Amino acid sequence: MEGLGNDFVVLGPEIAVDGVLVRTLCDRRRGVGADGVLQVSLANGVVVMGYWNADGSTAEMCGNGLRCVARYAFDHGFASSDSFEVLTPVGGRRVFVSENPRVETGPTSVGDVVVFEGLALTRVLVGNPHAVVIVEDVGSADVAGVGARLEKATPGGINVEFVRVIDRSRLEMRVWERGVGETLACGSGMVAAAVAAHRLGLTDQEVFVMVRGGEAEVALAGDTSWLTGPARYVFSGEFAS
Amino acid sequence: MEGLGNDFVVLGPEIAVDGVLVRTLCDRRRGVGADGVLQVSLANGVVVMGYWNADGSTAEMCGNGLRCVARYAFDHGFASSDSFEVLTPVGGRRVFVSENPRVETGPTSVGDVVVFEGLALTRVLVGNPHAVVIVEDVGSADVAGVGARLEKATPGGINVEFVRVIDRSRLEMRVWERGVGETLACGSGMVAAAVAAHRLGLTDQEVFVMVRGGEAEVALAGDTSWLTGPARYVFSGEFAS
Repeated sequence: MEGLGNDFVVLGPEIAVDGVLVRTLCDRRRGVGADGVLQVSLANGVVVMGYWNADGSTAEMCGNGLRCVARYAFDHGFASSDSFEVLTPVGGRRVFVSENPRVETGPTSVGDVVVFEGLALTRVLVGNPHAVVIVEDVGSADVAGVGARLEKATPGGINVEFVRVIDRSRLEMRVWERGVGETLACGSGMVAAAVAAHRLGLTDQEVFVMVRGGEAEVALAGDTSWLTGPARYVFSGEFAS
Repeated sequence: MEGLGNDFVVLGPEIAVDGVLVRTLCDRRRGVGADGVLQVSLANGVVVMGYWNADGSTAEMCGNGLRCVARYAFDHGFASSDSFEVLTPVGGRRVFVSENPRVETGPTSVGDVVVFEGLALTRVLVGNPHAVVIVEDVGSADVAGVGARLEKATPGGINVEFVRVIDRSRLEMRVWERGVGETLACGSGMVAAAVAAHRLGLTDQEVFVMVRGGEAEVALAGDTSWLTGPARYVFSGEFAS
């Protein structure tokens, strides 16, 4: 499955997942090829999401992956209603399933504006750390240069979003992902962009965010946040092992 | 399927293939992900191989792809014996099917030794053009630097093989593929390496060639050449379209 260009191998509960299997499946030439592996299972009637990065390490959360898990769980009978909770490594998240699932991306917190290389950055935590830069034009933004230098200058690293405000309900964004580089999309980065732009008084609580991989809607609501976007089946089949 | 790290989506005859479908299937994030698409069909009792590059363009030949076609055709009942001929875009090629199919890679021709940046190069044609450099150590060879410069300096481009002679029946090789960069393996490049080393009197007519993607055997026999190596099923399934 894929959401906004993030692609995943989604497994049912019957498979014992370990790092070797994850690396084998995610290998883009000798395996299926993916950014990560998602596993959907049931525990005491609750849908559980397991998530591994392509390198075999476990990961806390992935907004684009959660949308795929939500759709898969509903379509495969793990949930009896299209509205349910998914237990992720960072806690329970509510989901509403359709072709564009709406999933809870959880609480966010916003820090002060700091200056780096003359750019004003808003720090935002969405489980993981982000720095949001408002720019006039994302096409000409020095995503790789500033992204790499800011990631290096920040203990533990950071994700960096370059955001253009189109109007009060629309953002355009490019993203530098910690440990990866520029990517097509980053679910938590889209939430961070919405949080920062709202804090700066530039946007309302609900915004459409356009990224290179597509478009999703972020809604800030009380102490939590929501992300609505595509979750698409690409192919299904049997791995030859 | 994959052979030595070259991966392919293999289709049966019932699908109408065009450039759009090829690009959709080969997209490594939103499609299945592959170096190219192979199609296996039957015409007047003859197994026919179609081949497209990932960008949707048609291509003449691919040794690693021909091994996959050979195995697929036999396993799926296109051929009644494990020894048959495949009609490729460059003519008929004999194949012998096993887990490591032996396929005919066709006639080769070898040119003079020329010097580029102080390196002695043997030019070899295996359908497509190659330049083979004998080196002491492939690990430290400047594959990207020399490969890119030689490709650029050669009208129409060229594939460049950096080859260490281990003994009279074994070569180690890294390859720069025209239009691609360094790759895990190149079937015609392995044949070119065997032709050049044999012409220089360094090896016999049958050699094992080790590349980053694995190992294959090249046999030079009269006016043709043969390549024996793995052709592996990775997964099979249904594309969601």
